[in-house]
Amino acid sequence: MAEKEFEGHNHMLKNLGIDIGAHDQLMQGLQPMFREVFLSQKNRPKAMSYFDFRMSEIHGCRIRELSEHKEKGGKVIGAFCLYVPEEIVLAAGGMMVGLCAGADIGGPEAEQYLPRNICPLIRSSLGMKLSRLCPYFELADLVVGETTCDGKKKAWEIFQDLIPLHVMHLPAMKGTKAQELWLEEMIKFKEKVEEITGNEIDAAGLKEAIARVNRRRAILKRLNETRKISPTPISGKDALLVTQLGFSDDIEQFLEGAETLRQELEQRVRNSQGAIDAAMPRLMVSGCPMVLPNWKIHHIVETNGGAVVCEEACTGQRYFRDPVEESDGKLDNQLRVLSDRYLKLDCACFTPNDDRINNIIDLAQQYRVDGVIYNILQFCTTYAVEFYRVEKALKGIGVPVLRVETDYSQEDIGPLTNRLEAFLEMIRKTH
Amino acid sequence: MAEKEFEGHNHMLKNLGIDIGAHDQLMQGLQPMFREVFLSQKNRPKAMSYFDFRMSEIHGCRIRELSEHKEKGGKVIGAFCLYVPEEIVLAAGGMMVGLCAGADIGGPEAEQYLPRNICPLIRSSLGMKLSRLCPYFELADLVVGETTCDGKKKAWEIFQDLIPLHVMHLPAMKGTKAQELWLEEMIKFKEKVEEITGNEIDAAGLKEAIARVNRRRAILKRLNETRKISPTPISGKDALLVTQLGFSDDIEQFLEGAETLRQELEQRVRNSQGAIDAAMPRLMVSGCPMVLPNWKIHHIVETNGGAVVCEEACTGQRYFRDPVEESDGKLDNQLRVLSDRYLKLDCACFTPNDDRINNIIDLAQQYRVDGVIYNILQFCTTYAVEFYRVEKALKGIGVPVLRVETDYSQEDIGPLTNRLEAFLEMIRKTH
Repeated sequence: MAEKEFEGHNHMLKNLGIDIGAHDQLMQGLQPMFREVFLSQKNRPKAMSYFDFRMSEIHGCRIRELSEHKEKGGKVIGAFCLYVPEEIVLAAGGMMVGLCAGADIGGPEAEQYLPRNICPLIRSSLGMKLSRLCPYFELADLVVGETTCDGKKKAWEIFQDLIPLHVMHLPAMKGTKAQELWLEEMIKFKEKVEEITGNEIDAAGLKEAIARVNRRRAILKRLNETRKISPTPISGKDALLVTQLGFSDDIEQFLEGAETLRQELEQRVRNSQGAIDAAMPRLMVSGCPMVLPNWKIHHIVETNGGAVVCEEACTGQRYFRDPVEESDGKLDNQLRVLSDRYLKLDCACFTPNDDRINNIIDLAQQYRVDGVIYNILQFCTTYAVEFYRVEKALKGIGVPVLRVETDYSQEDIGPLTNRLEAFLEMIRKTH
Repeated sequence: MAEKEFEGHNHMLKNLGIDIGAHDQLMQGLQPMFREVFLSQKNRPKAMSYFDFRMSEIHGCRIRELSEHKEKGGKVIGAFCLYVPEEIVLAAGGMMVGLCAGADIGGPEAEQYLPRNICPLIRSSLGMKLSRLCPYFELADLVVGETTCDGKKKAWEIFQDLIPLHVMHLPAMKGTKAQELWLEEMIKFKEKVEEITGNEIDAAGLKEAIARVNRRRAILKRLNETRKISPTPISGKDALLVTQLGFSDDIEQFLEGAETLRQELEQRVRNSQGAIDAAMPRLMVSGCPMVLPNWKIHHIVETNGGAVVCEEACTGQRYFRDPVEESDGKLDNQLRVLSDRYLKLDCACFTPNDDRINNIIDLAQQYRVDGVIYNILQFCTTYAVEFYRVEKALKGIGVPVLRVETDYSQEDIGPLTNRLEAFLEMIRKTH
């Protein structure tokens, strides 16, 4: 990035209330990390350059675009979770972004409010807000929470003193009454978004918004299909980065970048050109979301002779697997279709959660994985306990699984690497 | 207990499938602990003898009574949580008991299924079941779970492979749709209990059951009222034991024992006869439930110059505070009244949870406490995060609060004692 442009960004960030000194430090740490994790890879698809650029501008150009949107009277809505329907925001002319929650930053600030044994995602998000390091938080006209897990559910009671907040009540079990409750939450959210944006949502607008988000789902799904082939034409790290950027990028620009990548990957498949040697064990990473800039497990695996070919996570298959039906007709009906689709998501916060177990088995087979890394963010009880059923199901089809529990710090890199190396070694030997 | 009777109990326990060797060890550890914690107290109310006896027979006579009930065709239903309506069970001629979950037992067995960082209550309950140490588990024709917290919600997926299970879906927020959902859960539970017991529930039976459970609430509430007086006529430990026994004891016998105690305590109040010196700081213990035989914090406080005069917990005020309205009329209406009353409970699993904050302030003032000990069972996220609002509210009325996080082990007794001593000392100095 040119120095002048950088200074311009800093001026903008300062106006947003960002702590520029601390933010510079954060960015200066991120750049060499990005070079090491991504740019040092061999056989990268050329089309990754778009995503590299968008990543480098995630607190630059992207913030400028959102600021310009706001200057024209548009609104920005921030969220942390797949259960918050972006379609509603887009239909009201708003933009939705994922908020910063993936770095080991602001921990001491967050621990003034939160217990120490809380998941790193929640600690990071509160820490980012308290340290004034996340421009998305500062831009957001509304932050949308949900009751997916105990940590987030209760942390909103702290956030509500810091930001304009709306909490969606996600049920814990599925069924008719839960559907009704969730539909009501969808309607309340629509009303809140209409109030914030000043724009009424109509059937035509919602239909168009559903189609837009579906296009992003479709291209991500198609991109990921190429990873079923051996050798995989894209590294797990790159595929993860693409998905992660989906949560913050402008949809149209993202679609263009992703379409170019799709063409290149499909060409690679036709040429049997791999990003990672076909002899390497093929792995699925299943479990907790990996929010930018969390690439820890993928990086360890892929610098130790493995290839990640599938992410069973909110920052993976769950994000793009199922499109929303593009139904015609009245707004009421569209909202019900949208609501039912969102409730079908198979986060570990539900009980029972057979859909996720079945989906993991299905993905393991479709992506022909040699093993599964079950990734738990520390203190994430729902994913941690659900491991019991996942392990049992994977045993049933003879796929080995390694449970790892980690956070955003670099402190456990040593032991984590040892465990992942041993797992890869075990897979190689049994092949 | 006479040796012959003891052997008779062991015969019965063995028939239930209890691991007698391990159970004997458990009981042999419990007896000296009970002597130290309870029987060594000075100025105890004489009427505590009933509760001492019932405690000593908790895996003896009480199991025999439940077994006899079963021999006559009655059913026993086990639960862990205040949200499971005992009235429904009683109305169908069943008996409800709280399951074992309060001792540091079965940890290694439980950790084969559960993550290490899970609350001790859940670990203990699964450990008790796997180690075959809890006769209540073995007697239960049905265990009833609920979706109160992530740990329990997901642990049922493990329990369902071990026991006959029914899970109630408790919403995370309150409101009209949540009330409808919870009413449906109440009806489903009623149907399940009818199926298990073979008895249909009618309006007259439910009305009577509501009155019975209300009588237990009323006597506990009245007993606890005497603790508002200084000197308190009963120690915190004894008051806690009485409440704890409410979850397993036969209602009619319990009412008799509690009535005798009430008369004695009210007489003590008239005579200004205290169980603990009036000069001692008066404390409220607020937070996670303390299930038998967990008396850890109360014991440390009361052997270090403090008096616990109120428990703001499921094993305290929340258990008996609000009676269920004894409405006439149709069963439908009764179920709605019952359902609405249960949903009003103010467990930290709800968000927002203003009722609890307001209630804590109210109790702190009514019981004229000098300080609050905020008790968190390790890894209990909901109570841990809610501390933020509780602390803020207590600061507002000038009541000091100490946050402690502990489990069922004895390992932290030293540092915990130091912290509680320092807190008591601080209170004494500022008076």
